[in-house]
Amino acid sequence: MQSVDKIITPRWIVPVEPDETVLEGYSLVVHEGRILDLLPTAEAEARYHGETHRRLAQHALIPGLVNAHTHSPMTLLRGLADDLPLMDWLQNHIWPAEGRFVGEAFVHDGTLLAAAEMLRGGTTCFNDMYFFPETTAQVSGQVGIRAAIGLIVIDFPSAWASQASEYIEKGLDIFDRHKGESLLSFCFAPHAPYTVADEPLKRLATLSAELDIPVHMHVHETAHELEESKARFGVRPLERLARLGLSGPNLMAVHMTQLESGEIAHLAGAGTHVVHCPESNLKLASGFCPVQALVEAGVNVALGTDGTASNNDLDMFGEMRTAALLAKGVSGNAAALPAHTALRMATLNGARALGLADEIGSLTPGKSADMVAVNLGELESQPVYDPVSHLVYAVGRHQVSDTWVAGRPLLRDRQLTTIDDTQLRQRISSWQTRIAEAD
Amino acid sequence: MQSVDKIITPRWIVPVEPDETVLEGYSLVVHEGRILDLLPTAEAEARYHGETHRRLAQHALIPGLVNAHTHSPMTLLRGLADDLPLMDWLQNHIWPAEGRFVGEAFVHDGTLLAAAEMLRGGTTCFNDMYFFPETTAQVSGQVGIRAAIGLIVIDFPSAWASQASEYIEKGLDIFDRHKGESLLSFCFAPHAPYTVADEPLKRLATLSAELDIPVHMHVHETAHELEESKARFGVRPLERLARLGLSGPNLMAVHMTQLESGEIAHLAGAGTHVVHCPESNLKLASGFCPVQALVEAGVNVALGTDGTASNNDLDMFGEMRTAALLAKGVSGNAAALPAHTALRMATLNGARALGLADEIGSLTPGKSADMVAVNLGELESQPVYDPVSHLVYAVGRHQVSDTWVAGRPLLRDRQLTTIDDTQLRQRISSWQTRIAEAD
Repeated sequence: MQSVDKIITPRWIVPVEPDETVLEGYSLVVHEGRILDLLPTAEAEARYHGETHRRLAQHALIPGLVNAHTHSPMTLLRGLADDLPLMDWLQNHIWPAEGRFVGEAFVHDGTLLAAAEMLRGGTTCFNDMYFFPETTAQVSGQVGIRAAIGLIVIDFPSAWASQASEYIEKGLDIFDRHKGESLLSFCFAPHAPYTVADEPLKRLATLSAELDIPVHMHVHETAHELEESKARFGVRPLERLARLGLSGPNLMAVHMTQLESGEIAHLAGAGTHVVHCPESNLKLASGFCPVQALVEAGVNVALGTDGTASNNDLDMFGEMRTAALLAKGVSGNAAALPAHTALRMATLNGARALGLADEIGSLTPGKSADMVAVNLGELESQPVYDPVSHLVYAVGRHQVSDTWVAGRPLLRDRQLTTIDDTQLRQRISSWQTRIAEAD
Repeated sequence: MQSVDKIITPRWIVPVEPDETVLEGYSLVVHEGRILDLLPTAEAEARYHGETHRRLAQHALIPGLVNAHTHSPMTLLRGLADDLPLMDWLQNHIWPAEGRFVGEAFVHDGTLLAAAEMLRGGTTCFNDMYFFPETTAQVSGQVGIRAAIGLIVIDFPSAWASQASEYIEKGLDIFDRHKGESLLSFCFAPHAPYTVADEPLKRLATLSAELDIPVHMHVHETAHELEESKARFGVRPLERLARLGLSGPNLMAVHMTQLESGEIAHLAGAGTHVVHCPESNLKLASGFCPVQALVEAGVNVALGTDGTASNNDLDMFGEMRTAALLAKGVSGNAAALPAHTALRMATLNGARALGLADEIGSLTPGKSADMVAVNLGELESQPVYDPVSHLVYAVGRHQVSDTWVAGRPLLRDRQLTTIDDTQLRQRISSWQTRIAEAD
């Protein structure tokens, strides 16, 4: 008998790799933060002695969800302003609130709330883009959640930096200080084609290649962005990025609601990743990302919630459902984006986009034990003919019972283990009062 | 001091009438199943002595949600088959399962599961369409939920009846036997224009007018339906229904994904109600209902989940969110279908469509005390700038703590009071085994 840290025996295991697989009667063995084995329960009990053995009779065990695009500190602005035309929303509510409040304390507390919400909803890794990214890294480290920290670059001054070159230097400093931390990875995060000039984008293309850091960017979010690009640069943003050396497999292009068929073929050929944010695209009336066409062309499509100001939650179960439903409506094909594909987008495809597919994204021996147990025993999930159908089309995120990152339980029976709920609520309450008064 | 049954003092009250109103510091007074008063808490405590006084410090009290279109017994087929082209789904999975299993026992147990799910999710009234409607009426009565029972009519034989005339006679019998029951109302429910011939539709038009019973029908669900109608009858279904006398304020036209501007004007002029089922329309790739255009034209638009085989839940909070998000995407206007409008569609508009607006749909003194308390204290709903934004864009239905119908608590602190959870689970489990074996 081999001694191991833990054995988990759920009702179902959905490993995501191999595709379309649902295992019953299997156990997952975790040791030193990694998945050691995945095997029939009888064999697991014969071969391993777990320091703990968790039996989850009504649960599906799945890989931790990867939120491939968010602005986590914006949780503090959740529901501050909705149902407004885009520019009214930005200019009269979001930007003034950010201008007044964004700083280390805002980013600290907003990221903490986001981490709490994400862990309670089965998200174990998030790809962030916001000011004061080192604070996001610090909070993530304290909590134990996995984070891809966006080293934001924008041509405009903010409380964080004054011009593109300073954003880049500050970002590189953060990268140098934290690059060895096992739960952190980094992306360059130039905000969007319309907010970053050619020179800084060229520099990021070079740095991205040299340091092998992905580039995380809003691209082709709205029709207006395309019109402006054609007027200013004579080409659509994707072509401009390609000319600047920014369209290869290191690019995570977020939103992509405006795409011509030649562009889809280009993305597939270049190995560029697309991050689909269906709820944000709907809420801001940005357009429809042609997800089914991208998938059929072989493009790796990941899923993100975007920030809570345009969603208004960090619920990857809801995002999977919206993606799976919307793809059918947009393509006119009820067979588009089936449940297994939605789950893969929310796990392995996100890991691939972030360059982390060797580490996370599926329940594969050797990978980090980033996992989520979902209780399918609630009445709303009865009967169960296909647990993956329920994960996408019927489950609520409150059915997540346990969330582990690198084998460490960060949510246990719905209780956060590394976040002080009372203290967090006090901090949010204080922000709420100040922000509401100013709006 | 006047003695009353109960006083409820939540943090917020959203009465829906008057529109766009959020009350803080108010209490609602219930006596003999009705809303007696709605007034500032200090005045309530000076004027009334409640047999119980419930304080809900973090909750919003809203009218009970009205699910304006469902097929409740289909809960037993939840997730049986997804992600399939429509005809494959129907012909190879849903119809065979229904053909084999539908009967009184199936309808009884499926309705019971639906009632449990709806009450746990804040739905107090549902408008049903299925075979064996008397069984649905009986189960609803046992549970205490409000139901609009669809007296189904279809030209094809089923376990319930053999031809349209028999469906109509059986429906009228049920209506006669149950019409005095306070929580029941009735609709004629001819299935769809393509499954019911002119003669029975003409008879229903006459009966509907004579007995003042609404007509609940799938109309303009898919483009295929319109093509078939033009080929068979020379006109679009809505025009055919109008010629048969079925397009006035007694018609609840469900789905309506295919509409020309002249038809929208006709609906507004005729006072016809539209029931929007956004998740079903997406999942079956039926098309997009032009909700914003309908609302702007003055058409009363209610919301429904459709059955769980095409959704896969009976979650009216999810349906509000999908409706509010999708309307923005489809109209290209981020200000379309704001949160207050979504809540009104899910409450008062449903009541109006069913002819029940004098009885339910808003927290108005004199109306039945059909109410829902939603806990906004969870981390996922923090901070709170606007409780109605959260109800539509951030809340999960599990945050419903209490549901009352006619003042009677049917869900109390998340516990169902009139449904035996253990027995219900045993029944579902037995159906699951039989149905899975046959699929």
